[in-house]
Amino acid sequence: MALISQSRRLRRTPFSDGVEAAGVKGYTVYNRMLLPTVFRSVVEDYHHLKNAVQVWDVAVERQVELRGPDASRLMQMLTPRDLRSMQLGQCYYVPIVDETGGMINDPVALKLAEDRWWISIADSDLLLWVKGLAYGYRLDVLVDEPDVSPLAVQGPKADDLMAAVFGDAVRNIKFFRFGWFDFQGTSMAIARSGYSKQGGFEIYVDGFDNGMPLWNALMEAGKDMDVFAGCPNLIERIEGGLLSYGNDMTRNNTPHEAGLGKFCSTQTAIGCVGRDALLRVAKEGPTQQIRPISIDGDIPACDRVWPLMAGKKKVGQVTSAAASPDFDTGVAIGMVKMTHWDEGTALTVHTPDGVREATVIEKFWI
Amino acid sequence: MALISQSRRLRRTPFSDGVEAAGVKGYTVYNRMLLPTVFRSVVEDYHHLKNAVQVWDVAVERQVELRGPDASRLMQMLTPRDLRSMQLGQCYYVPIVDETGGMINDPVALKLAEDRWWISIADSDLLLWVKGLAYGYRLDVLVDEPDVSPLAVQGPKADDLMAAVFGDAVRNIKFFRFGWFDFQGTSMAIARSGYSKQGGFEIYVDGFDNGMPLWNALMEAGKDMDVFAGCPNLIERIEGGLLSYGNDMTRNNTPHEAGLGKFCSTQTAIGCVGRDALLRVAKEGPTQQIRPISIDGDIPACDRVWPLMAGKKKVGQVTSAAASPDFDTGVAIGMVKMTHWDEGTALTVHTPDGVREATVIEKFWI
Repeated sequence: MALISQSRRLRRTPFSDGVEAAGVKGYTVYNRMLLPTVFRSVVEDYHHLKNAVQVWDVAVERQVELRGPDASRLMQMLTPRDLRSMQLGQCYYVPIVDETGGMINDPVALKLAEDRWWISIADSDLLLWVKGLAYGYRLDVLVDEPDVSPLAVQGPKADDLMAAVFGDAVRNIKFFRFGWFDFQGTSMAIARSGYSKQGGFEIYVDGFDNGMPLWNALMEAGKDMDVFAGCPNLIERIEGGLLSYGNDMTRNNTPHEAGLGKFCSTQTAIGCVGRDALLRVAKEGPTQQIRPISIDGDIPACDRVWPLMAGKKKVGQVTSAAASPDFDTGVAIGMVKMTHWDEGTALTVHTPDGVREATVIEKFWI
Repeated sequence: MALISQSRRLRRTPFSDGVEAAGVKGYTVYNRMLLPTVFRSVVEDYHHLKNAVQVWDVAVERQVELRGPDASRLMQMLTPRDLRSMQLGQCYYVPIVDETGGMINDPVALKLAEDRWWISIADSDLLLWVKGLAYGYRLDVLVDEPDVSPLAVQGPKADDLMAAVFGDAVRNIKFFRFGWFDFQGTSMAIARSGYSKQGGFEIYVDGFDNGMPLWNALMEAGKDMDVFAGCPNLIERIEGGLLSYGNDMTRNNTPHEAGLGKFCSTQTAIGCVGRDALLRVAKEGPTQQIRPISIDGDIPACDRVWPLMAGKKKVGQVTSAAASPDFDTGVAIGMVKMTHWDEGTALTVHTPDGVREATVIEKFWI
């Protein structure tokens, strides 16, 4: 493993000082910003996440804000998910596609007002796509990246920790809903959401300078709850089937290939870019799709696609993989052709460290 | 310094196997792809670059290809530089701005044909901006990222090494021009260009699988020339005043602030996005601008902006800095307000390691 050379271009976050003080050991880069990947060890972090509570610097989930009379029209142009019944205070997971139906992001959208949205993005410069469309269509809307940085609180004790800082009202936030809460005089959106299956919240921290005071308040309030710094955990997110844009699907894939067809209402999402391309996919179904894959033997770091083979025939690829302590197997996410995607299909996966036995399984592990 | 956690999302390049075999010690991430930053040491790499010849994996300079009847119209929409007199086989450095005149990339454009262009991009998903505009304007053009990955050959012996592999005709390529050359049956564009001041070429390697054969051919042919793997060198590029998008200028800056006003023909670049915003800047001039800054004392890693102060007043910021062995001073790039940008102005710069004396100087070092 090589070192990461830091520079201003790889942006620090409002929480970087806290992350460093907690002894971060590894980073990835996400939206041209530093995202921690490991604190004590990936396995230690994994067990801790499942048993206690962690504070995550996920400022890399940059916001694209739409504001103005055409904001809602533009938002519906961006996604094949039908937004007509979405209410204020709701979060929607929204696949975003280009005109060919290829995925260019898979963010969470927050409806702040009828004329104001935040899109909490995965790893691509969605801002440029949205600005290009708004300019080309001469829409009456402001599109910008506000000074808002999400901080996640994840784990079984997340409710208790959040209540200690924001009051018991946070316990009433429903899944994929958000409310507004005060922190030291600043109102911040808090959603019940996050990139783990252990439950928790994402705080949309408004203002860079509010970052460390909130980080410190959470660490102080959580002393008796075994709180520690954490980050999206590779093992836990694969066990839970949480997809990673850029890893598990790219612009080459439709939402249907990524198993996100249920979020695509191509018949009713009028005005959505890519609708024509997706109508046919929706009708005929994809020819390859994401599946959970269990792998025997030791699992090297998955730093490139690994071919999935049926004998000498390539029938797919693995894009994320890790060894699972709790399930005592290699857990992986793969894209598999329809000829071989049925539950129980035995395949081999070709890793740089050698060939492994693999099996398509029915469901993700948790 | 922390480790970088590799994943498929941080894409490997056609040359990654060669980079690893050469003992790469550090990476940055650029356009969601791995970019080497150091091999032997930044200082050793620096001296070697100035005395011998290096082969650089700059596949991170992804291409945005425009092809079709509206390709040239779209290209002119993207940049305030007037492209009317540009000829086939020319490369132009083209600032690209959004509708507010803020820079969103500073790539090199290659005119392949009247209806076909490559844009060799800096660190932002320019593809999404270009696709959004093309869709919004319903232009008759294909916009995509082709399987083309630049490999640079830089240093005083670059001509000799390139001639050994591609023949003596490469010596005739003029600065910022390109020609077509064969490598093992594939025609590739070769330009006299590159992100150093030591001279050299960029080969637009067509096809992932051609990467390592070409890398190996260059290494083999250069054995007597002290060829080695290299990468853009932090010290050398600051000495030479080569700007880095994301470090030295961002979407907050106009081209004029970045000292790129000479590439903006806002009066004649008809149809360029951002023209209205830049017309006024062009007339009145910017209120802050990039300047070379010399700094006394030792220079920590510049991983964030460093305030430039005149007494207690903030008058700018340093965004790139390094200690220069050849010039025996700290070399830096800063953005300085017009009140303090004159040559010889004495300032202080506030680094995380303490305050340093700094001086605005007239010209970059080479």
